[in-house]
Amino acid sequence: MVKEVRNLMNEVVKNILERRSWRSYEDRQISDQELDTILQCGLWAPSAMNQQSWHFTVVQNKERIAELTKGCQKMMDTDRDPFYGAPTLVVVTAKADCIAPQQDGSLAIENMMLAASSLGIGSCWINCLARFLTTEDGKAFAEKVGIPAGYVGVSCLILGYPQGERPEPKERAQGTVNFVK
Amino acid sequence: MVKEVRNLMNEVVKNILERRSWRSYEDRQISDQELDTILQCGLWAPSAMNQQSWHFTVVQNKERIAELTKGCQKMMDTDRDPFYGAPTLVVVTAKADCIAPQQDGSLAIENMMLAASSLGIGSCWINCLARFLTTEDGKAFAEKVGIPAGYVGVSCLILGYPQGERPEPKERAQGTVNFVK
Repeated sequence: MVKEVRNLMNEVVKNILERRSWRSYEDRQISDQELDTILQCGLWAPSAMNQQSWHFTVVQNKERIAELTKGCQKMMDTDRDPFYGAPTLVVVTAKADCIAPQQDGSLAIENMMLAASSLGIGSCWINCLARFLTTEDGKAFAEKVGIPAGYVGVSCLILGYPQGERPEPKERAQGTVNFVK
Repeated sequence: MVKEVRNLMNEVVKNILERRSWRSYEDRQISDQELDTILQCGLWAPSAMNQQSWHFTVVQNKERIAELTKGCQKMMDTDRDPFYGAPTLVVVTAKADCIAPQQDGSLAIENMMLAASSLGIGSCWINCLARFLTTEDGKAFAEKVGIPAGYVGVSCLILGYPQGERPEPKERAQGTVNFVK
């Protein structure tokens, strides 16, 4: 098993270990500067053969968020808010015919989650949006907001000032690291 | 377009923006403590529904690395070293029947790359290994080193002390962020 991290703690490692997925947000919007910093960090992720296959669609307009909410709720037959009231959505898509679109997009999202956490901003990976974009409603939405043709959904990153109690860390699965002799 | 990041720089953002993919390494091995810190950071990535579908196989044994090198070279019909002489390989696989194995594994790898960078350790995502694991040679290797059945290759992360000149940042693609009105 992996030993406890004791002596090599630094701001980067600490931020990785302390990042949590937030599912409750304040109403007020994050600042443009915070958003730009987070997006920049996403754009500086590595990507397969440097293809940078990602595309980010930033949605802060409440009407557009409501449309996405309604679309995902209809798809999943639920009235739960899939975006947990977050004021900013970053819909991450990636060019389907690149080498590793899902992986490129995921690396960008992790950078954004970590940058957000370092700025005191909560985030969560919302998986249902990738599936929504494969539905007729989702395709219509994609066209309306200018998601380029030939791009597939990776995920939706929600961002906002976190609200309520800090989530406890979830236990780590066991047996996930094997040291080859 | 995304504006320049000026005022919100912190250690985490700086580390994200300054991480580079390294393709030249010193011979000497990284320390166990550095390795453990990096692996821990991988294990603390988020994952779809907290399934933590990843599995890391750490390979430092030179004979095993030589076997993997030979296997990948044969597959790609080349004599180029796919692992750039790195002394540590972390083969990341993920449980195929989970919600998002490729995405979970990618998030873990990005955490490890960023943690490595913060510790002065170079890293690079080596894509060919995922494909190698689908070949007969790859399957035999997976069984030999104990990669669990039912797991798919995500990628191979190489780690080591970087050597030579720090790679210049690659230009970012344009038109990758759209702010919805």
